[in-house]
This record gives sequence, C-alpha cells and structure tokens, in this order.
Amino acid sequence: MSKTLNIGMIGYGFMGRTHSNGYNRVPNFFPELEYKPVLKAACARNKEALQEFADTWGYESIETDWRELLKRDDIDAVDICVPNNLHGEMAIAAAEAGKMILCEKPLAMDVAEGQKMVDAVEKAGVANTVWYNYRRIPAVTLAKQIIDSGKLGQIFHYRANFLQDWTINADVPQGGAGTWRLDSAAAGSGVTGDLLAHCIDTAIWLNGSISNVSAMTETFVKERVHAETGEKQAVGIDDACAFLCRFGNGSLGLFESTRYARGHKALYTFEINGEHGSLKWDLHDLHRLDYFEYADEAATRGWRSIHVTDNGGEHPYMDHYWVPGLQIGYEHSFLNQVADFLKSLETGEPCGPTFADALETQKVCDAVLASGNDGGWHDV
Amino acid sequence: MSKTLNIGMIGYGFMGRTHSNGYNRVPNFFPELEYKPVLKAACARNKEALQEFADTWGYESIETDWRELLKRDDIDAVDICVPNNLHGEMAIAAAEAGKMILCEKPLAMDVAEGQKMVDAVEKAGVANTVWYNYRRIPAVTLAKQIIDSGKLGQIFHYRANFLQDWTINADVPQGGAGTWRLDSAAAGSGVTGDLLAHCIDTAIWLNGSISNVSAMTETFVKERVHAETGEKQAVGIDDACAFLCRFGNGSLGLFESTRYARGHKALYTFEINGEHGSLKWDLHDLHRLDYFEYADEAATRGWRSIHVTDNGGEHPYMDHYWVPGLQIGYEHSFLNQVADFLKSLETGEPCGPTFADALETQKVCDAVLASGNDGGWHDV
Amino acid sequence: MSKTLNIGMIGYGFMGRTHSNGYNRVPNFFPELEYKPVLKAACARNKEALQEFADTWGYESIETDWRELLKRDDIDAVDICVPNNLHGEMAIAAAEAGKMILCEKPLAMDVAEGQKMVDAVEKAGVANTVWYNYRRIPAVTLAKQIIDSGKLGQIFHYRANFLQDWTINADVPQGGAGTWRLDSAAAGSGVTGDLLAHCIDTAIWLNGSISNVSAMTETFVKERVHAETGEKQAVGIDDACAFLCRFGNGSLGLFESTRYARGHKALYTFEINGEHGSLKWDLHDLHRLDYFEYADEAATRGWRSIHVTDNGGEHPYMDHYWVPGLQIGYEHSFLNQVADFLKSLETGEPCGPTFADALETQKVCDAVLASGNDGGWHDV
Amino acid sequence: MSKTLNIGMIGYGFMGRTHSNGYNRVPNFFPELEYKPVLKAACARNKEALQEFADTWGYESIETDWRELLKRDDIDAVDICVPNNLHGEMAIAAAEAGKMILCEKPLAMDVAEGQKMVDAVEKAGVANTVWYNYRRIPAVTLAKQIIDSGKLGQIFHYRANFLQDWTINADVPQGGAGTWRLDSAAAGSGVTGDLLAHCIDTAIWLNGSISNVSAMTETFVKERVHAETGEKQAVGIDDACAFLCRFGNGSLGLFESTRYARGHKALYTFEINGEHGSLKWDLHDLHRLDYFEYADEAATRGWRSIHVTDNGGEHPYMDHYWVPGLQIGYEHSFLNQVADFLKSLETGEPCGPTFADALETQKVCDAVLASGNDGGWHDV
Repeated sequence: MSKTLNIGMIGYGFMGRTHSNGYNRVPNFFPELEYKPVLKAACARNKEALQEFADTWGYESIETDWRELLKRDDIDAVDICVPNNLHGEMAIAAAEAGKMILCEKPLAMDVAEGQKMVDAVEKAGVANTVWYNYRRIPAVTLAKQIIDSGKLGQIFHYRANFLQDWTINADVPQGGAGTWRLDSAAAGSGVTGDLLAHCIDTAIWLNGSISNVSAMTETFVKERVHAETGEKQAVGIDDACAFLCRFGNGSLGLFESTRYARGHKALYTFEINGEHGSLKWDLHDLHRLDYFEYADEAATRGWRSIHVTDNGGEHPYMDHYWVPGLQIGYEHSFLNQVADFLKSLETGEPCGPTFADALETQKVCDAVLASGNDGGWHDV
Repeated sequence: MSKTLNIGMIGYGFMGRTHSNGYNRVPNFFPELEYKPVLKAACARNKEALQEFADTWGYESIETDWRELLKRDDIDAVDICVPNNLHGEMAIAAAEAGKMILCEKPLAMDVAEGQKMVDAVEKAGVANTVWYNYRRIPAVTLAKQIIDSGKLGQIFHYRANFLQDWTINADVPQGGAGTWRLDSAAAGSGVTGDLLAHCIDTAIWLNGSISNVSAMTETFVKERVHAETGEKQAVGIDDACAFLCRFGNGSLGLFESTRYARGHKALYTFEINGEHGSLKWDLHDLHRLDYFEYADEAATRGWRSIHVTDNGGEHPYMDHYWVPGLQIGYEHSFLNQVADFLKSLETGEPCGPTFADALETQKVCDAVLASGNDGGWHDV
Repeated sequence: MSKTLNIGMIGYGFMGRTHSNGYNRVPNFFPELEYKPVLKAACARNKEALQEFADTWGYESIETDWRELLKRDDIDAVDICVPNNLHGEMAIAAAEAGKMILCEKPLAMDVAEGQKMVDAVEKAGVANTVWYNYRRIPAVTLAKQIIDSGKLGQIFHYRANFLQDWTINADVPQGGAGTWRLDSAAAGSGVTGDLLAHCIDTAIWLNGSISNVSAMTETFVKERVHAETGEKQAVGIDDACAFLCRFGNGSLGLFESTRYARGHKALYTFEINGEHGSLKWDLHDLHRLDYFEYADEAATRGWRSIHVTDNGGEHPYMDHYWVPGLQIGYEHSFLNQVADFLKSLETGEPCGPTFADALETQKVCDAVLASGNDGGWHDV
Repeated sequence: MSKTLNIGMIGYGFMGRTHSNGYNRVPNFFPELEYKPVLKAACARNKEALQEFADTWGYESIETDWRELLKRDDIDAVDICVPNNLHGEMAIAAAEAGKMILCEKPLAMDVAEGQKMVDAVEKAGVANTVWYNYRRIPAVTLAKQIIDSGKLGQIFHYRANFLQDWTINADVPQGGAGTWRLDSAAAGSGVTGDLLAHCIDTAIWLNGSISNVSAMTETFVKERVHAETGEKQAVGIDDACAFLCRFGNGSLGLFESTRYARGHKALYTFEINGEHGSLKWDLHDLHRLDYFEYADEAATRGWRSIHVTDNGGEHPYMDHYWVPGLQIGYEHSFLNQVADFLKSLETGEPCGPTFADALETQKVCDAVLASGNDGGWHDV
C-alpha cells in the first residue's frame, strides 16, 4: 500500500461508524491494494461528540464546518454521512472542490437534486460512489455472478422486502440525531428512501431497469413528538410502502417495506425466479444464499443452502477473510466497498453504484412516492 | 354415527379423490359424529374412467348424466368437483332439487354467476359449503384462534403468495381433463381463481374484508396447444397475478401468485403482522406455524416454530389423529372439512365458507382481474 | 383387487389404529394390487373398548381370546399390536396355526425369544413382517435409494437419535394400558426397545450390520406409581440410552435416545456421511430429505432440501398420493408397508423387515443394554 | 484508553490473524476500556513471511527468536499462536519472564505438561487466558446467562459435535505450516485436541465438570505424505472421535468430532436439555440461539429462534456493535475476548478460561484419548 487516500468524514452516526471501520480494516484484509485509506479528518457541528468519535476511530483531526473541510488540501475524498437533505449541497460543493465523494444512500431528496449531483461529479470528473452496501455482502455478490452467468435463464419474477418493527410504539419521537429518519424534512421520505432504496438498487443491479410502478403508502402513526422541540407534529413520512412493477426484461416485481412488521429487525430479503433456477437471500442470515437449479436430477433436486464462506476463490471476497464455515458479518459489506473503491482508483474503472447509478434508484423512488399519492401507474 | 348422509359426487379428478378420501375416513377419525357419509353415487360423462374411480373409492353406483343424479331420492348432498364453468349451472339445479351442496372453489366464473348461486341455495334453504380447504389445516386454524384471541393487537400487514412452477415449459398444453386450469373457457381465470382465491379466502377469514385492490397480471406464454384438439390457441388466462390492497381494518395487503416461480411446487404462504405479535405459515411445511410474541422477555424473544401436532386439546383437530410430534398431511384438511360439515348438520350452524362467504372472495377476484386489465384501483 | 386378505387384529391401542387405517386405505391408493385387506376380526380382552374400536374402524367381528382368533379359518393374517412381552407367545402360536404375521416392533423381549419366533415362522413358512414403519416414509426410502446407488461413496459416519420429552414429569405413572411402555415387565426395556430399535432398524437397512457397541443408560426418575395398582414401584426401564458403535463397513455410529429432551416430541433424526455426499432426515419434517452432493459446482454447492412430494416416479410411493408440493403424513408409512406386504404376496418375495431382519435389531438392542450394564464394548 | 498493553505475538498463521484483528479493533468498539493494546512485536522464524504479516497487521517490530522477545522490557503480554507442541516451553518461559500470557488452545500436549504450565503462571502470578473463543460468541454467552439464571432447571442431557470435511481427500498432506494439525508430533492429537477441546470447554463452562468418559477413535486415512519432506508417513492422529460421558450434575453427555463429515465446513453445535427448557446453537449460523421454554402457553409453545443482535443490553456484547438485526461474525469472538482480558486487568479478576480452567479440558481430552485406546470408561 504505497499510496494514501486521505479521507474527510462528514457525520459521526451509525453510518459514520460503519464507514470508519471499513477504512480502518481494509489494510489488514486487502493488503495487496495500492491505496491505503488514512482517516485525516472528521467533521460535524457538535464538537464534543465529534472529538469522542474521532478519538474512538482514530481520526487525525476534526473540523466543525464542512466548508472548511473541503478547503483542506490534505483531503482526497469526502465521505458524506449526514441526513439526506444535506447530501446535495455537500456533494456538489465537494465536487467543485475536486474531491472524490463517497456518499451515503439515498443519493438525494429527489430526482431533480440527484441530477444536479450527477452533473456536478461528471463535470468535475471526480471518483464517486454511493453506499448501497448490500451489493457487497458476499452472498449477494454471488447471486449477481450466478445471474450474470445465465444459469437462471429468462427471468419471470423478482420480489423483495425490507421489514422492521422499531417504530410501532407511538412514543418514538421524530427528528433529532437519533430519529431524523422519521422526519420528512431531513429524510425526504420514510421507508421508501431508507429501506426500499436498498431493495431497488440491488434489484436493478441484479435484474436490470424498472419500467413502471404502482404503489401504496401508509402512515400508521399520524403524529409524533419532535425529539428536540418536544412538540407534537404531523408525521410526514411513509411508515410503509409496497409497490408492483415491471422490469425492462419483462419480469414482474413486487416490493414492500415497513417499520411495522413485528418480529423483524432488519429483514431484507429478495428472491428471483428464472426459467432454469431461482435464488433467495435474507439479511438476517446474510452468509447464506439459497439456490434452486432445475437441471439437477429430479429425485434429488432441492433448494441448496449455500454457506457462502469458502475462501479458495469460490465465493466473492471470502478469500480475504477466514476459512470455510466461518462467517463474516454486516460490517464487512463496507470493507468490501472500500476495497473496491480503492481498487477502482488503480484501474480507473468506476466503483458502482456511482452517482449516476444511484440516480436510477432515485427515479424509481420518486415514481413510487408519486404513485403512492395518486394511485396510478407511473413510468420511471 | 346413527344417521347417513348420502353423497353424490360429480367429477373424479384430483379434487374428486381428495373429497372421496375425506368422506371415507371421517368415520374412523370422528366417530362421535351423528352423520356418516355414504358414497352413494359418482357421476361423470366418461363411463369407463368413472367406473374405475367408483371402484377405487367405493361408490355404490355411477351416473353419467348429472341431471339424473339430481333426480335420485337417495342422494342427500351433491359434491361438485368439475371445472369452474360448470359450477353455476349444477349448483343452481342442485339447490332447486333440494340437495345440500359441497362445491369446489372458486365458487363461480364471476360475481354475477356467484350471486345467482347464493340466491339459489338461500332460496332453497339447503346446507352449502365451498372447499376452501386450507382453513382447516390445523396450523391455519390455530392462526385463526390466535388472531381471534386478540394476541396480535392492531393488524398492520398481511401478505400471502402462492407459487408454483409447473407451466414454465411452453409445451404444456391447455384444455382437456388434466390441464383445463390453463383454459380460460373452463377455468375463467388463471392463477387468480385457482390459487389467489385460496389466499383471499384465508385472508378474509383471518383479517376481515378487503376494501380495494390494485393488480398486475401477466401471461408469459402467449400460445399453447390444446390438449384435445392439438391446435395452437392464444392463452387466455393469467399466468401470474399480484395485487396490493387495503383491508377494512386499515391494514395493508400484498398478494402474489404465479406458476412460473422455479423451485416452488405449491408454496402457499401467508404472514400477518400485528402490534403485539406476528404469524407465518407455509404449505410446504403445513404442520408448523411460526409465531412471534413481543411480550416475551427481550433477551429470549424469537420466532417460535410451533409443531402443530399436540393431541391434548391444544391444537385444533389434532386430538382426532395421532400423538405429539407426528404430523398429518394435506389431505386431512378435507377430512376436517367433512367433519365440520357433518357437525353443522347436527347444530344447524352454517359450515363456512358458505356460498355467501365464497362470494366475497369472488368479488375480490373480479376486482383484481379488472384492475389487472385497466391498472387502476378497484373497490371490492 | 381380486383376492382378499382377512386380517385378525390383536390389540386396539395407538398401533392398532395406525395399522387399521393402513388396511382401510390401501385399496383407495394402491388399487392395482391383487390383494385387498379385509378387517375380519379385532381381538382384545376388554370387550367394551374392543367393540368401540371395531365399530370405529369397521371390523366385522370381535374376539376376546386371541387363541380363539387363531382357530378361525377366516383369518389369513394376524396383526400383533400388544405390549412387547406378549409378542413371542402369540407369534409362535400364530405361526403354528399357519397364519401370516404382521408384528409390532420390537420383535421380542430379547434375542432368545426372538430366535424362537424366527424359527417358528420359518418352520411354518408363513409370510411375516415387523412394523418398523419408518423405512417407508418416502424420504427415508429415497435415502435408501440414494445410498444404494453408490452416490455417497465410502461411508464414514452414521448418527441417529430419537428424542422425546413426555416422561419428565415424575407424576407420569407406569404400567397399564396407556403407559405400559414405562413398565419393564411389559416393555422389556425403555427407550432402547421403543425408540432406539427404530433407529437401529433404519441404520442396518441403510448402512449394513453393526459389529459392536459401547453404551450408557440412565433412569432419571427412580420410582413411579403404577397406573392400575396405584402403588409406588421402582422404575425398571432405561429413560435414556446412548451408544457408540462400529459398522461392518468400517463406519462409526453414534446413537442416542431419551424421553427427557425438553422441546422434542418425537424427533427421530439420522445423518449419514460418505465420501461423496451426505444425507439428513428428521421425523418432525418427515417429508423432507437433506442431501449434500460434493460433485456440485463449488460456488453453488450446498445442502439441498428435497421436498419429497413429487408424483411422477421421482419419489418413492408418492405417485400413489397427490401432486407435487402436497405432503403426506406419519400414517402413510403404515399404508406403504401394508401395500408392500400385499405386493409381497403376489411376488413371493419377503416383505422386509422380516422377523429374521428384526432379530438383527434385537441383537443390537441386547448388546446395547448389556453394555449399559457393565460399561464394556459388546460384540453384536 | 489511558494505558497501553504491549503485545508480543508469536506465530502468524490463522490464529495470529484472528488475534491481531482482535487487538486492532477493540479500541474502536470498546473505547471505554482503560487499556489499549499495542502491537509491539511479532515473532516467528521465517523472517520474510513474518515481515509481511507484521506490515499487514501493523506490528511495530519483529523478532525471529521467541526467547529474545521474552527478554524485551517493552512487551507486557505474550500471545502464543504456534503449534501445540510449543505451547508448554514458551508459556513456562514467558511466565518466568513475568509476561502475561494469552495462549492458543488446547493448552498443552497432555495433562502433565499442562499442569507445569498452570504451576508456572500461578507461581509467577501473571494474568493468563486460553483462546477458547467460542465462549464469547454472543449467542453462546447468552446461553450461559440463561442456564445460570436457572431457567432450564435440572439438566438431563448435553450433546455437542464439531464436524468438518476437509481431510477426506487422501492427498491432503500432513505436517508443515498449513497442515501441522494432521501431524501428531506437532498437534498431539487430531480432532480431539483441535475440535473436541472447544466442545469440552464450552460444555464444562455451561454444564459443569465431566466425571468419566467412554470413547471411540478412528483414523480413516492411514498414511499421508509429509508436506515438507514429501515422504509417506503413518498418520498418528485421530481423524474422528466420539465419546459418551457423565457430568458431575448427573446429566449425560454425547460428543463427536470428525473431519470426514461431508457437507460440513465447521459445524460446531451443542444442545442442552433441562427440566424446564432447552437450548441449541450452531456455528454455521452463530448469531442465532434456539431456545425452548416449557412454561410458554401450550398452544403456542415452540422453539424460539433468537436473533442475537439486539444492542440495548439484552444480548451480551452486542451493545458494542451495530443495531438490531445486523449480525457480527466469527472474528468478533476474539474481539470480545480481548476486551474481557483488558477488563480483567482493570478489575483484577481472572479472564476465563484461565490456564487452570483449560487444564480441566485437557484432563477430559486425555481421558478420551485413553479410552479411545483401550475401550474402557475412564475417570477424568
């Protein structure tokens, strides 16, 4: 690792931690890469909390004004880990400052903003990626490889859902540091941008573009107290969203997300059915991929539970970790994305999903929300 | 079993077998009932095949004209196991002849016909039931008991699907004895009437009425050879159908069915999420019910896999069968329905789903098909 | 079914019900067989209970003295469903009377008695079989076919257990009609003869002879009240038993059974590991077989969950039942054994496990109990 | 983290990596601890490979002679990650040098050597621990908490196995860096010390002492080529080992390990059955714990699948990681052990398993191997 990549991190929440962990650990697990990430500076307004975060993760310095961060010459790449309503302004400014950008998902508050962000990075010619991390769970990457190999044949169906249960209690507040995801001003939307966006990114990656959608949205709890002001406010986000869609390849899609599915913590699942085979995956057992191959002998045909932990080259990313049978966790999806981003600096190839890729997901999200409002089918 | 109930069976296909097995075995497992079914006559046009069926299952006589069957005084109840397009005419005539009716699902070709059937049985005052047999899988009945007990609290979500894969091959013919389900003239619709109707019946039973729907339908294979004529014909049925809906209780529903989901033979699954708990079931492991109870201690809370085989009164119907741990199968849902029908003759209470209940399912099916055609939301 | 086989049933307990159900239903599901079983007579000492049993299952007559039953010319085959201590006397007398014999397992109280029974049936030349019914669960039969095909290669390991939890409560009595299995005078042994005998029969069938064993037995509850006398007695049976063994083919075996495994109702499981593949099965989901094939491509290799419900000839026995995806239950293992017994009368081939086969299992059981007593390795 | 703990690592293999990762990451996840580990020096004979390892993991210096490492004043603790036959000499010397010791398992080649190691650390009064890391998988620690709470009541059964399949191919060599575990001179034993030792450590921790054992061992492949010399040698290790045992609390134990169980990569499973409940766990899905509670209402009782990922204090260690539903991996057991070791330096309490604890496991291993040789029961 002969070159350094100096990271400026904006934000220190849950995603700030997962990304920092990724930067810190990649040198241990991907020592063959040219670039080594250096945690140069962390940035946020709350200086005390920021300093604690910086100390814990080993950032060399802190900044309390993100515009100052962008001015620093010793920052190569900016990582944007703040609420969704700040992505656009920061990313555009960062691009203008010539910084590479690693931006949390969803890309933007809406397609219009997202388009400006894409324009900015393309004009600036800076490397960019969006943290749709689930692409790089090894089992999900293996699904991609199987699909791309043609083993499934013509695709008929794709279904995905992302089920949580943490907002059922009406006493959960909205807004503020811990619960900004429930505040439409900060988050833009509810489960659509937070959870379905993941499902859509994976779906497009695995199964191609989505043509049109018909959605249903619901807000079960109509009012919540704001975490900072203590005042009761109308809830502006979608608590639940489901949609039907058609893909460009002719297959049918079915997506659902909610934070009111009692018993599910973060159950992201997808399934894809093709002419010759099918695949299933779920985040609660992320190290497994279920695969059905119709070509198997009829008497012994059955869904195969693939334990995606082999390290001899069979299973993506796993040769960087332990030995067969020993699983990695959620956080390693971020390590893998950091590694792939560093690799892309060597090769000059983009590290997907780029801003442009993420804009496609944004377009689907916008169409879904529009359909949720008027009940009609919307083209993407 | 001091009284007899003389059965006249019309049809001898797959459902003719499951029902016959039900009638034959109920006396062994429910000896406390007053009524004992007697297989008095089997009826169909193909005399040779009918005689073989009658011999195998022990029917005392055969008829080749169903109108003759209805004239016989020694027939108490008529069981209609023929393609959907014949249900209406037969059932109305049977009601007029004063026969009790056990009719295969779906009730009718459409709501208009179904309404006439309901009118006929109500006018005649004859006992009637429709074979939505899955209500009486013990695990499903247990789900009903849990929901009715209020243990789940307010319901937020209901989702169900019925996935098969037997028509992917474009060489499968349509029409004729074995494949009439692919022929719209005989079946009325494809997966909607065949499979989703089951899902809808269970859903209404467990979660109440469905208010409105938005659907998507698809026919993947556009032409098939007719099994009898050998001629290529346009396929008129829906190969796949998915729909969003809202229930009367405010919960959201998501339903899907297809015969193009490679790897699934007859995977009927449902899940219901409430404020205090959730339930999941699938037909491929029909003797299990998954249950999540939020009131459990936090550290040891988890989805419970209930092995629905206890015979001490805990699990519905199971005290009629074996001992804990020993599962019954698909066919027992029909035994249980026969037993409940016989019991209803003792008590005078209807044996649900009645024709009137099944008409509600028909209304949802019609709305789904209409929505599949025009893409809009349809009230039920 | 042009010929009849007149059955004389001795006993009316749990097994009397499963066998009667088998005889009753085989004509419906295996109509191609020459022989049709006829429930000619049921026999037991308790006349009132016997009459009720006979009425429920359709026996034409009853006998209260089994010796009288054996004298009847209209009885072709005797089915012995009484406590273990009565098997020997009845079976030997039945053989001497020239009756075919279908005997509940375990064959005998010990090897010496079992040998006499084998001698008797062989001398008499009468058809005989022992109800080790689990061989005929379709998934278990499929395991046999896979093993016999050579797909597993050299076998290294076999492990099985049979776990229950119904006697943990010290208030459960022993002796009497419902709990004779806890009474050593009636049962001979505890879990060894009741449960491990099943595991051993399957193991020998699948993996060949067992050479020697080393066992451990335990009686957790030392005294129980007798169900009939109400007096407290020492418990003479083994509540739990585990043993190590070596098979004739060089593989290692591990077996365990108990009635003190909280949470397991009747969890009979086995697994076999070979050079090229492995198989797993459990009774709580009896319609599935798990199979691992090392020859599968490395990236997509995984345990296959085979849903053993196909009816096109792929899965044993299933072409006699329903359609793919629809499971049969525990009781069908008895139907299948009745069908195979009837078939054996056509072909003249024995219907395994014969008395001679069951004697091999008895030898292992005796060696296990001897080893449990003295702690040493015992040759079988 | 105001104090440093300077680590001297001996060895750079698989375990050297897992431990190094633990030291590196604890400051990120357990920032509240007083002590911060510093990777001061790595030590091994192969200088080139060592330097690469040191660079990858961030060791400040290297040593090629472990005795030199022990002389350095800037080393506080020595981590022994070398083949088993070197543990004793190094640990005793390290204790004499006043170093804390973190030693890979198994403790020693045999009880005699292990006793000397225990004597040495106790005489020197140095902190010591052995890397039986599975105690600190959160699901396993939760099992310990449940058992200690008394929720299971009297224990009847404990069973564990550790199944692998990587040595089935007779071409796998023995000896050398990658395969020393197959060389009895380096490893002492085969699966007994490598795999069963883990099972035994967990079992004693969860269920108390083991009193006596009866074992069976086997070596399936009798000769292998030595990895370094290329010469064919007799295989001296046990390829497979199974044993029966009795615990001090009266419960029965059953253990098995093999490297010939096709389809299992590293399937460590245990199950414990008590009067009021049971627990099951397996390493292939290490983030789940299955729990059965008999006190649950009869109708809805079932095995609970606990997803051990809650971070609000419910699930051990998890408040240091992510959010509910997001699993950690195998490697985190080492992080947790490092954290607990650092904590023990604050409190002065030992960090189990200590050398003395590990000696108990060694005693069981020795008794198992002795029993495998002579076939008799051996007291521990």
